[in-house]
Amino acid sequence: MNIAVAQSGGPTCAINSSLLGVIKGALGSDKIDTIYGAVNGIEGIINQNLIDLTAASKEYDLELLRQTPSSALGSCRYKLPDFSKEPAVLQKIIDCFKAFGIEAFFYIGGNDSMDTVYKLSKHFMANGIDIKVMGVPKTIDNDLCETDHTPGFGSAAKYVSTTIKEVIRDSSVYDMKSVTIIEIMGRNAGWLTASACLLHKSEVAPHLIYLPECDFSLAKFISDIEKVQKTHQSVIVALSEGVKISDANMSTEGAAVDSFGHTMLGGVGKFLENEVKKALGCKVRSIELNVMQRAGSHISSLTDIDEAEKVGTAAVKAMLKGETGKMMAFKRVSNDPYKVNIEPADASMVANHEKMFPKEWINAEQNNIEDEAISYFAPLIMGEQNIKTEDGLPVHLVFKGLLK
Amino acid sequence: MNIAVAQSGGPTCAINSSLLGVIKGALGSDKIDTIYGAVNGIEGIINQNLIDLTAASKEYDLELLRQTPSSALGSCRYKLPDFSKEPAVLQKIIDCFKAFGIEAFFYIGGNDSMDTVYKLSKHFMANGIDIKVMGVPKTIDNDLCETDHTPGFGSAAKYVSTTIKEVIRDSSVYDMKSVTIIEIMGRNAGWLTASACLLHKSEVAPHLIYLPECDFSLAKFISDIEKVQKTHQSVIVALSEGVKISDANMSTEGAAVDSFGHTMLGGVGKFLENEVKKALGCKVRSIELNVMQRAGSHISSLTDIDEAEKVGTAAVKAMLKGETGKMMAFKRVSNDPYKVNIEPADASMVANHEKMFPKEWINAEQNNIEDEAISYFAPLIMGEQNIKTEDGLPVHLVFKGLLK
Repeated sequence: MNIAVAQSGGPTCAINSSLLGVIKGALGSDKIDTIYGAVNGIEGIINQNLIDLTAASKEYDLELLRQTPSSALGSCRYKLPDFSKEPAVLQKIIDCFKAFGIEAFFYIGGNDSMDTVYKLSKHFMANGIDIKVMGVPKTIDNDLCETDHTPGFGSAAKYVSTTIKEVIRDSSVYDMKSVTIIEIMGRNAGWLTASACLLHKSEVAPHLIYLPECDFSLAKFISDIEKVQKTHQSVIVALSEGVKISDANMSTEGAAVDSFGHTMLGGVGKFLENEVKKALGCKVRSIELNVMQRAGSHISSLTDIDEAEKVGTAAVKAMLKGETGKMMAFKRVSNDPYKVNIEPADASMVANHEKMFPKEWINAEQNNIEDEAISYFAPLIMGEQNIKTEDGLPVHLVFKGLLK
Repeated sequence: MNIAVAQSGGPTCAINSSLLGVIKGALGSDKIDTIYGAVNGIEGIINQNLIDLTAASKEYDLELLRQTPSSALGSCRYKLPDFSKEPAVLQKIIDCFKAFGIEAFFYIGGNDSMDTVYKLSKHFMANGIDIKVMGVPKTIDNDLCETDHTPGFGSAAKYVSTTIKEVIRDSSVYDMKSVTIIEIMGRNAGWLTASACLLHKSEVAPHLIYLPECDFSLAKFISDIEKVQKTHQSVIVALSEGVKISDANMSTEGAAVDSFGHTMLGGVGKFLENEVKKALGCKVRSIELNVMQRAGSHISSLTDIDEAEKVGTAAVKAMLKGETGKMMAFKRVSNDPYKVNIEPADASMVANHEKMFPKEWINAEQNNIEDEAISYFAPLIMGEQNIKTEDGLPVHLVFKGLLK
């Protein structure tokens, strides 16, 4: 049998490690012949845009996928339509699978991708089509249900805490009051922002941590900062990009709007920088960790990269045992020593759901994270990869013709 | 004799390595008794706020200074007044030196700090006061005269190119036109932005590089991008924060002003993001590398950190030979193999001057860097430090009581 694999949604540091895991799992099985990589996610299946990864495994040093951020096969944001209303897309997918003899499809992605896994597997099972569809989790947001955590999250968390630690050093050199607001990704779920609590093992900062799961008002934010300023000259704030400011004008897209009704160019961090400056008159800086937090593979978590590879291989093994419509998930056995099992979970339970940060790990003031969360986060950022460099820069694997 | 050392100006990844170099040089000499560290630059001398670094060398693992970003002794932006007009400050400095038996002062900093070195050494020599004053260069801007390059620059350049490389991967995953503008530090001198040309050894991008030394118009910028888009779907731009847009409204502080006369909150990158979006209608993102580019010591250049330490030690040795009013400078002997000598240069030739990026290394279109520059930059980012970590995060050295 032949198989196909694709990557979808926002890139991470670990999604290529999962791709490597699928490839290795398939190369290790005598039941699998050719491994195809679909270019730009499910769109590569629909458009029959595939590359031969079995051949690539001879041409490239695929181990470099472990240190290559983003999606080596490209990505998409395509969500499958309702098949009963738009049957043409489904037909194209089936045509592609038939044309290339593909009997199993592995989709590495988040909850939208698990929707694809669920819809396709359900259709194939209901119609007696023997094509297996398996999901491999990924997202820096850590918001997938049914799994203890998601590949890509640990590396993003390691980037965030490493970077904030460096920013703390940088922000405290002058003998003056200052506020530094660090804006972290996560539209709805605050896991990544919350992970900045890992710094509390070695630093006093961040003094304040705000998640989208909590109420947020500008007035309370400023009074929180003033309180911290009584004991700390340099205030460090970890702020989720997804906080909704209850007492400021916001556009429908969630961006702050100034008094003239113009949407602010920057994100919520930049808006708050300006407001705190006006209110407190001290030095204020906002820092957006931007795409670096999901692409900073030079500082990826070895635990995360290892697990991402394992979960890819596990998906192949589960499929060979007959599973379909499943996403491979982590079940945590213990924190210390850290141990997880990888088990299949129903993709339907993951599709279109979001797992929020637990309320019990947020403090009563809703402006910091309880220490209990540290033991959950701590194992996920452990270990560093030995990064292969050339001319002083990390080496990345780029498949020929895929960089446009 | 006792000595004092202080750090000044914007922090870097290497300024603490130079501090270590001074301490090691002093500990290695039987002529030097106590090493004092002045807190917050020359202000620590003026206010007699000193810590005993000889004692600290027994209490702390000072080697950690090599992997601790920013200024461990704190910093300041204080510029010495004209002594003839304001003699009180000078008197306070002399009082401190006398009170602590300090016969040599080492100032690690940029061109403002070299102004301090020059003024103090000139006064002491003219008045027969036997206190030596020596400068140790540092700045990520690489804009000091008399030296081939400056400690801190190599690490910043390594951060910039490593990060842009990861951003290139991240920006090219979707099958759509996109423009990514990366804003890099450097108000007047474009060295750090220009160093992104190092990526041309392994990448097609950055497709466009803009320095403050060049003319810059919005109209030309947009037409440059359109030209690149004819062959590349994902356009990557390295942009200095210091470019002056000739055909846009700018505030007196150099920030862009919108059509209502309001100063834009973000920097020039954010402004251009918005303008390109309006003009070309494609996906545009701007990324500010912010303080991370000067604080990212987890990805510092081993060459830079080694040189920073050496130049600190060399300053102590030169002082012991009788030098004063000098900044230790790098003279490049060869690129391949890379070899530099460290020699004293007159601080007066460095003070208040800026070294601009050479015009002959900028292309005729003024939107990219010639390949010749690569051999200048390449050795400066070579090598990685073996970073000591705890709980998955780099360990930093923080002197007790100095973090407020």
